[in-house]
Amino acid sequence: MIVLRREIGDVLRDARQRQGRTLREVSSAARVSLGYLSEVERGQKEASSELLASICEALDVPLSLVLREVSDKIAVAEGLHVPDTIPADVLAGMYSRAAASREDLTPVG
Amino acid sequence: MIVLRREIGDVLRDARQRQGRTLREVSSAARVSLGYLSEVERGQKEASSELLASICEALDVPLSLVLREVSDKIAVAEGLHVPDTIPADVLAGMYSRAAASREDLTPVG
Repeated sequence: MIVLRREIGDVLRDARQRQGRTLREVSSAARVSLGYLSEVERGQKEASSELLASICEALDVPLSLVLREVSDKIAVAEGLHVPDTIPADVLAGMYSRAAASREDLTPVG
Repeated sequence: MIVLRREIGDVLRDARQRQGRTLREVSSAARVSLGYLSEVERGQKEASSELLASICEALDVPLSLVLREVSDKIAVAEGLHVPDTIPADVLAGMYSRAAASREDLTPVG
């Protein structure tokens, strides 16, 4: 069975590890306890919307990108074809650009 | 501020209303209380992974599609360009096809 919190946890842990950061560093930046972040990453605790936003901010990763990755993984698990899944290298570039230009972002429209 | 549970609630309510179904019908099919579903739709309560999965199943909508819609909406709110947002009419078709072929789905690979 697909459990959303596990998929979210996997994506958050991957994002943190891609940055070479420790649980301690990210939990401190996100102002959540290390134990809480660890449980979220392992899919053992549901992250509230507010704390998930804090964790994404601490990781400097847009929430939308985390959810997009989660959606793509779940689509595969659901047996649905995902015609435009973002390739891993493109995704990595998007994360970097998002982080680099985060200060400059202005709302669309 | 972007609050994930509100975006999820909006997408779930839209999906239900597109099907012309009542809160009562969907809450019954999902085996959640009407009050709980109503609170989730209004973004007042965090849906647990298990109950979100039940609601999606009751709506006959893949969880991945709900998350994809949520991700796209949040990307716009975050001021991120979403080059391949699914157009509304295509999305409606995907929902229909997903519902129609749900029994035939087999895992990829």
